[in-house]
Amino acid sequence: MLVVKKFGGTSVGNKDRIMNVAKRCIEDYKKGNDVVVVLSAMGKMTDELIAKAKEINPNPSRREMDMLLTTGEQTSVSLMAMAMDSLGVPAVSLNAFQVAMHTTSVYSNARIKRIDTDRIMNELEQRKIVIVTGFQGVDQFDNYTTLGRGGSDTTAVALAAALHADACEIYTDVDGVYTADPRKVSEAKKLNEITYDEMLEMATLGAGVLHNRSVELAKKHGVALVVRSSLTTEEGTVVKESVKSRDNEISGVAGDDDAARIAVMGIEDTPGMAFKIFNVLAKKNVNVDMILQSVGHNDKKDISFTVKEEELDIAVKALEDYLPDSYYEEIKASKEVAKVSIIGKGLLNHYGMAARMFNALYKADVNIRMISTSEIRVTVLVNQEDMVKAMNAAHEEFEM
Amino acid sequence: MLVVKKFGGTSVGNKDRIMNVAKRCIEDYKKGNDVVVVLSAMGKMTDELIAKAKEINPNPSRREMDMLLTTGEQTSVSLMAMAMDSLGVPAVSLNAFQVAMHTTSVYSNARIKRIDTDRIMNELEQRKIVIVTGFQGVDQFDNYTTLGRGGSDTTAVALAAALHADACEIYTDVDGVYTADPRKVSEAKKLNEITYDEMLEMATLGAGVLHNRSVELAKKHGVALVVRSSLTTEEGTVVKESVKSRDNEISGVAGDDDAARIAVMGIEDTPGMAFKIFNVLAKKNVNVDMILQSVGHNDKKDISFTVKEEELDIAVKALEDYLPDSYYEEIKASKEVAKVSIIGKGLLNHYGMAARMFNALYKADVNIRMISTSEIRVTVLVNQEDMVKAMNAAHEEFEM
Repeated sequence: MLVVKKFGGTSVGNKDRIMNVAKRCIEDYKKGNDVVVVLSAMGKMTDELIAKAKEINPNPSRREMDMLLTTGEQTSVSLMAMAMDSLGVPAVSLNAFQVAMHTTSVYSNARIKRIDTDRIMNELEQRKIVIVTGFQGVDQFDNYTTLGRGGSDTTAVALAAALHADACEIYTDVDGVYTADPRKVSEAKKLNEITYDEMLEMATLGAGVLHNRSVELAKKHGVALVVRSSLTTEEGTVVKESVKSRDNEISGVAGDDDAARIAVMGIEDTPGMAFKIFNVLAKKNVNVDMILQSVGHNDKKDISFTVKEEELDIAVKALEDYLPDSYYEEIKASKEVAKVSIIGKGLLNHYGMAARMFNALYKADVNIRMISTSEIRVTVLVNQEDMVKAMNAAHEEFEM
Repeated sequence: MLVVKKFGGTSVGNKDRIMNVAKRCIEDYKKGNDVVVVLSAMGKMTDELIAKAKEINPNPSRREMDMLLTTGEQTSVSLMAMAMDSLGVPAVSLNAFQVAMHTTSVYSNARIKRIDTDRIMNELEQRKIVIVTGFQGVDQFDNYTTLGRGGSDTTAVALAAALHADACEIYTDVDGVYTADPRKVSEAKKLNEITYDEMLEMATLGAGVLHNRSVELAKKHGVALVVRSSLTTEEGTVVKESVKSRDNEISGVAGDDDAARIAVMGIEDTPGMAFKIFNVLAKKNVNVDMILQSVGHNDKKDISFTVKEEELDIAVKALEDYLPDSYYEEIKASKEVAKVSIIGKGLLNHYGMAARMFNALYKADVNIRMISTSEIRVTVLVNQEDMVKAMNAAHEEFEM
């Protein structure tokens, strides 16, 4: 069996943790498996390198930043190879250039184009554990690139696909995917299985332990992921195309308080006004999420929508600067909102589920301000102070 | 003009020093020159990485150690590129893989085989300052290698040769090559010029600011080196094939207290005894330096020789273990000795110089225990406590 195992920065944060990961990988190796390990940079190393760079240049070029950051994973993998060697198991570390992890040239946010597997296969045939730098790649001109947030997960999935691995294990500081954040919903339970699509919705809503891009890549190549803890031997959660159980059920509840609401009030009821508003925001690269259009007073319209909290000020300023005053009466903005979602492939054919959610929130005295849905998700905007209460009410309603 | 400038770890040890080096290189660039900069790892970074490795594995593989250490220079070069960029000058950092610095596979002590200059020339044509990692290379299987002690100097010289550079400047913490160590000989003077061969003898004797391999490479390719300070704008010392002035003179006096003396006393006067002694030492990789054979008492011989201090114990133990007791009467060992040398191409045709040195030491009441010579060097072994006195006496004698 060929297994790809990915460990994050916390799991390799110091000597003891490195030895712990080494032992864990060696257990698998001694069962006769081929083991490929993907590592992130140690602990806070990436943050420290960024700080060092900004001290010298507050606005460093992305090309040079990637050149600097790739030293982080290279440090992790070489130390890990030494750790395994000290435990008597042959290991070799490879960085993006040695693996030939080819990416696009978009520094700090590159995409993997192609992986040459010759070197890795060759080392595996010599019965070595192969330790690969996550997060990094090289472009066609031999420049280093990095893959952006969650990049090491993406590296692991891409390697698993290229090597036709039998398993891709993502080790993290939680022991799987839960029906809700256990810090907010005490009744939250670990899921044994979840579909790629459900996982994607969870990730988008800030509740996922995996980054979207890695899940998309896993879905595209049919790589079954296992999310599990590097600290325990618990089974973890399998992320795959379809799951057998709980067909009519909800897989999880997510809460996201990184949301802000903007309402443009008293808009003239002429065609194209919505386009004008969202065009202004698009030009400023502001991502708009939930949108609600309603009839206001005096036959005028109100348009409300949500943005991420950190984009609120830019969005409001853009609207005030570029939207003629005569187009609207008032702009209202608030950060005191949060999104609560239920996710599950069971939603697809069961329209009654959304109604049950709204009813549960009503009974819990939670006011719903906006609603948006996808095929496998229902999201409501609530007051921020009601978020946890709403999550628990929904979680209880669907007996997760 | 194309200039290669090499700066050591101290010169890039913190933000201010990095900015200082950046400014210095930019001055040259603004004169219209093509500038290639070679950097070592920052300050103590290499030592810190080695300590980190040894914590995990007291005896790490050299392949993985090189993989780890190469992150040091990569950190320096990317930060330097950011520094130059912040000063408004386009710069690009390149590591050994990006330059295509091909070396042998001897980890921790590789030799440069070939440098592809395409990438560097291409970047220079775009009027960028090119910043290259010193000390490191890649072998034919894409593994990282390092060049051993003084490796960054070697990188700079090899690049200067490959690029047909007009100058190769080695910046260091002293402002040139001196006639003697100024900490020991207060009358020591900076040399304007010195030949490769003289520099090699100085380096071998521990007095050189350049490592032997870089000087050998410069000699082989006829690269004129300039040794100068990164802290001042002093002219420095030029190292080249031949120098015009001081043809009959001595270029320098060197003292080396990293020497130990072993005397094997009372050896049977049968053929092959010297071979047996040095064969035992060769098998233990002990380097023998000065050798003196003398007639002892009772028609027996004494053989004395010097080794480096750290090899003394190994050498004595090897002799005791492998040399039959009947071959000799006694082995004496002492670390209380030092070598004092005069170096100069003037020695080549002027035999009287050695006699003048011996006379000067005699007048200074320094006892000479052994003598060895090369074409451009005379070395004497003295008691360690006499080393500085002997250096000063020789320095004064030749009016340096």
